[in-house]
Amino acid sequence: MSESATTEMADLAVDGEKKMSKKELNKLAKAAKKNEAKAAAVRMYGSYGLIQSADEKKDMEYTELRAINASLDGKEIWVRARIHATRSKGKTAFLVLRHRVHTAQLMLFVGEKLSKQMLKFVAGISKESIVDVRGLVKKVEGEGIASCTQKDAELHAVEVFVVSAAEPRLPLQIEDASRGEHDASGLSCVNLDTRLDNRVLDLRTPTAQAIFAIQAGVCRYFRNCLAARGFTEIHTPKIISAASEGGANVFQVTYFKGSAYLAQSPQLYKQMAIAGDFDRVYTIGSVFRAEDSNTHRHMTEFMGLDLEMAFKHHYHEVMLTIGETLINIFKNLQEEFDQEILTVAQQYPAEPFVFCEPALVLKFPEAIAMLRADGVEIGDEEDMSTPVEKQLGRLVKAKYNTDFYILDKFPLAVRPFYTMPDPKDGRYSNSYDMFMRGEEILSGAQRIHDAAFLTERAKHHGIALEQIQSYIDSFKYGCPPHAGGGIGLERVTMLFLGLHNIRLASLFPRDPKRITP
Amino acid sequence: MSESATTEMADLAVDGEKKMSKKELNKLAKAAKKNEAKAAAVRMYGSYGLIQSADEKKDMEYTELRAINASLDGKEIWVRARIHATRSKGKTAFLVLRHRVHTAQLMLFVGEKLSKQMLKFVAGISKESIVDVRGLVKKVEGEGIASCTQKDAELHAVEVFVVSAAEPRLPLQIEDASRGEHDASGLSCVNLDTRLDNRVLDLRTPTAQAIFAIQAGVCRYFRNCLAARGFTEIHTPKIISAASEGGANVFQVTYFKGSAYLAQSPQLYKQMAIAGDFDRVYTIGSVFRAEDSNTHRHMTEFMGLDLEMAFKHHYHEVMLTIGETLINIFKNLQEEFDQEILTVAQQYPAEPFVFCEPALVLKFPEAIAMLRADGVEIGDEEDMSTPVEKQLGRLVKAKYNTDFYILDKFPLAVRPFYTMPDPKDGRYSNSYDMFMRGEEILSGAQRIHDAAFLTERAKHHGIALEQIQSYIDSFKYGCPPHAGGGIGLERVTMLFLGLHNIRLASLFPRDPKRITP
Repeated sequence: MSESATTEMADLAVDGEKKMSKKELNKLAKAAKKNEAKAAAVRMYGSYGLIQSADEKKDMEYTELRAINASLDGKEIWVRARIHATRSKGKTAFLVLRHRVHTAQLMLFVGEKLSKQMLKFVAGISKESIVDVRGLVKKVEGEGIASCTQKDAELHAVEVFVVSAAEPRLPLQIEDASRGEHDASGLSCVNLDTRLDNRVLDLRTPTAQAIFAIQAGVCRYFRNCLAARGFTEIHTPKIISAASEGGANVFQVTYFKGSAYLAQSPQLYKQMAIAGDFDRVYTIGSVFRAEDSNTHRHMTEFMGLDLEMAFKHHYHEVMLTIGETLINIFKNLQEEFDQEILTVAQQYPAEPFVFCEPALVLKFPEAIAMLRADGVEIGDEEDMSTPVEKQLGRLVKAKYNTDFYILDKFPLAVRPFYTMPDPKDGRYSNSYDMFMRGEEILSGAQRIHDAAFLTERAKHHGIALEQIQSYIDSFKYGCPPHAGGGIGLERVTMLFLGLHNIRLASLFPRDPKRITP
Repeated sequence: MSESATTEMADLAVDGEKKMSKKELNKLAKAAKKNEAKAAAVRMYGSYGLIQSADEKKDMEYTELRAINASLDGKEIWVRARIHATRSKGKTAFLVLRHRVHTAQLMLFVGEKLSKQMLKFVAGISKESIVDVRGLVKKVEGEGIASCTQKDAELHAVEVFVVSAAEPRLPLQIEDASRGEHDASGLSCVNLDTRLDNRVLDLRTPTAQAIFAIQAGVCRYFRNCLAARGFTEIHTPKIISAASEGGANVFQVTYFKGSAYLAQSPQLYKQMAIAGDFDRVYTIGSVFRAEDSNTHRHMTEFMGLDLEMAFKHHYHEVMLTIGETLINIFKNLQEEFDQEILTVAQQYPAEPFVFCEPALVLKFPEAIAMLRADGVEIGDEEDMSTPVEKQLGRLVKAKYNTDFYILDKFPLAVRPFYTMPDPKDGRYSNSYDMFMRGEEILSGAQRIHDAAFLTERAKHHGIALEQIQSYIDSFKYGCPPHAGGGIGLERVTMLFLGLHNIRLASLFPRDPKRITP
C-alpha cells in the first residue's frame, strides 16, 4: 500500500463505527507525534465508514480469498471477505474469513506490530461483517487447516478495516443454515420458512451458492445447445388479453381501465413465432399459475425454459431434440459442477442422478402396463397422479437404470385443446412429458397447425373462440407443422440435485402463502 | 426419393386440399394402369393433407433454400419453402420460393415430365402457402436473378406438394409490409397498427427477421460479456407484495384472496442477491410499467437486461464495466449482423451507429453547460425532458462523434430514494444514465448499502417503511458497496438500428392500448 493511500486510510479510520471529525483527526495526528505506537495502531485497524465512492483507491490490489495458498507464502496481500467465525484467547485470535463458498484462517498475535487494542477491536467485529484485511500469507505445514477450504496457507493480520458491519444478532446462523433440516448431530438447524424469511442470509450458505451456480448452468447449456441447433431466442408478453387455456388458474391484472391476465405459458406466442417464420425458437421467462397448490413442487411463479420447433414430417424430430438438449445439460452439469453437486449432497443427501443416452422413450400404454403389473389400478386413458408418476419412476429406474425418461403418446382427453391427436388411434395424442426422478419436468406436444381443425378442437373443449381468435388466425396463412415443450427450471434444478423442496431452487419463491421477501 | 416413399406420397396425394378415401385411391390405382401419364401426374403434385406425424419419412433429405447455388447445378433436391410470388403464362410458370429471408426462383415448363394440370395446380397455390418441392437445380448464366437472394441458380420443378395452405386473401402483403412507411415509390405500404394486428405476417418480412436476429444477439453478447467477468445469471420474482418504489405506475394483481403487484424492475432483488454474496449478478426478464404513455418509446411491458455488482471503493468500477459491456455488444453486432443491419436500413434508413472506445463519460453539470451554451434554459438540479435529452445527444454527436455516451452524477433530487448521494456535493448523486442516439437506454447508480441510511432516505422520500422492510433488512447483516443498472432491450435494438418506434423491436408489444395479439 502506498504512502498516500495509507494516509487516506488514516483519514477514514475510526475506532468503532463512527466517522471522525477533522478536528479529532488533527488531534490524533498531534498525539501520534508523541506516541508513534498509538498512531500506528490507528492506521492499522478501524472502519472505513460508509463507502460513498469518495476515492477510487486504484493502488490497492486485492487477492481473491480462494487464491490463498502455499504458493503465496511470505507475500502480503489485501483480501475483502466476511468474518465467518472468531475465537480469541489472551494475546491470540483465530478468525475464519469467508468469501462466497471459500474460507481461510486469519491469525492475530499481539506483539511488536499488533497492539492489544487492535486484537480487541478485530475480535469484536460482529460475524458476517465485511472486512478488508492486509495479511501476510504463511504456509501451513502438516495436514492443513481442517475448518477452512484454504488448507495449506493462512493469513497473519497486518491491517483490518470494517467495510460493512453486520448487526450483532443474526436471525439465523450460517453454520446452522448449512446443516440439513434432518441433521442427526443434534446441532440446531434451520427450517424452510426461517430460511426463506431470511433469504439474504440463507443464500450465503455453500449449498445455496452451489444450487444457484448449477441453476445458471442449466440455462446456459439450454441456450448453447439450442443455439447450436439453429434456434433463435425470443421474448413473449406476460400480460395477455384473455385467459387462453380455459380460464382456470390464471392471475388477473388491473390494466388501466380494463383488466388483463398473466400468461400461464409462452406457448401461444412461441407458436405464433413459428407461424411468423422463426422456424426454431426458445425463450426463458417467468410463467404464472394461480393454483392454490401448497406442495413441495408447486410455485405460483417459476421460470419456464420453453422451445418450439417446426418439423418436416414427424413430431419425434422435436421430441428427440428436446431429449438430447436435456441430456446435454445433465452431462455438462456433472462435468462442470462436480464440486457444487458434492456440496449440495452434503447438506441434502441424494443418490447421484443417472441417465441413459439416447433418452429412454416409453409409450403411455407401456407405462400403464408396467403400473398394472405392479398392482396399480388405472384406466387406459387416465392421467397419472403424482404418487403414481413417482411409482412409475421407481419401476423405470429399476428396469432401465435411468432417472430421466420420456413418456410419449398421452391420452388425448387429458391434454389441452391445441394438442394434435394421434393419426392412427384417436384415443391418444402426439404429446409427451419428460420426467426426472419420477417427477414431471416438461410437458410438450405437436400442436395443431391448421386453423379449421384448431377451431373444431377448441369448440370441443368449450373454449370461447372470440378469446383466442388472434391465436387461431395465426394459422390461416400457412404454418409449418411444429411441436415444442416447456421445462420448469426450478424443477430441473431440484430433481437433478435430489432436493426435497422446489423453494430451495428459487431465489425468492412465490407460493399461495408467500410473496415476500 | 426412394420407391417406397413415392408410394407413400401417392397415398397422401390429392387434388386440391381434400384427403382422398381408400376407395378413391384404389379407383385411381386402377385408372393408373390404363393411363400411366395421369397416374404419374397424381404422384407429382398435390397436397399432403394435414401432417399429423403418421410417418417419419426418414429417407427424404431436404436442402435449405439458402444453400441453392450454382455448385448444385444438375442435382435434384427437396426444398420446403413458402410461395412468395407466382406468375404463369401459357406453358410456363415462374414462382418465387421463400424461406425466412432467402428467396429462390422455381420454374415450371409443361412438357414430357410436367403436365398442364400440374402447372395449373401449382400456379393456383395461394401465396404464403408452404410447399415441398423436388426440383432440379439449374445454374443461371449472366447477371443472375434480380428478384431473388439466390441469384446464380434456380429450381426446375419435378414434384410439388402443399404442406400447409394459406387463405387466398391475406390481410397484408409481405411485399407491402417490406416497404418503409414513408416509401416514396407510391406503392402501398403498411401502417404500424395493421402490422401489429397481423404480426404473424409482418414477422415474415426480411426486416422483422433481421431485427429479432439482432435482438437475440444483444442478449447473447450481454450474457457472454458478463459471464466472462464473473457474473452469475439469476431470476427474480415478478409478483411482489408491495409497490416498492413509491406506488405510482404499478400494475395490481389479484392474488388469491389478497392482492399483489408486478415488479417495475428486478432491482431490489438484484441487490438482495448482492447482500446474499452473489457478488456480481445479471438477469434478463420482463418488467412492467403501468404508465399511460403513448409515445414511440414507451411500452407497458418490456425486457430488462439488469445487472448489479459489488465494488471495492468506487461505483465507477461498475459504471465502466457496464460501458464496456455495451460497447462489446455494439462491436459484436456490427461484426456478426452486418447483413441484417443493411436489410433493416433498406426499409428504415438511418445513419450507421457510431461510438467511441472507451465510452465517453460526461458529468451532469457539463451537460447542463453544453445545453445552456446552445440556448436551453435549465436549472442545475433539473431533470432533462425527452426533447432536451435529444438535443444533448445532437450536441454530443457534433462534438465527440459518438451516438453512445454515459451521463454521470445526476442531481440527487431526481433519483430514487435508494440512490447514494455524492460524497462531496449533496446536490448530486452517484448515479448515471446511458444514452444511444440521444435517448436513454439505461439508468443506474450506486445504491445505499447501509440499512440506517437507507431508512433515513426512504423516510425523506415519504415511502411507507413497512412496505419495504424486508428490503431494508437485507442490508443489516453486512453488504458490500454495490452499483448496477437496467438496460431496456427493445430500446437498445431500436436505437442501434435507428428505428422510429419501439414496437418494431418487440415481438408482441404491449402499450396502454394494445394487449393483443
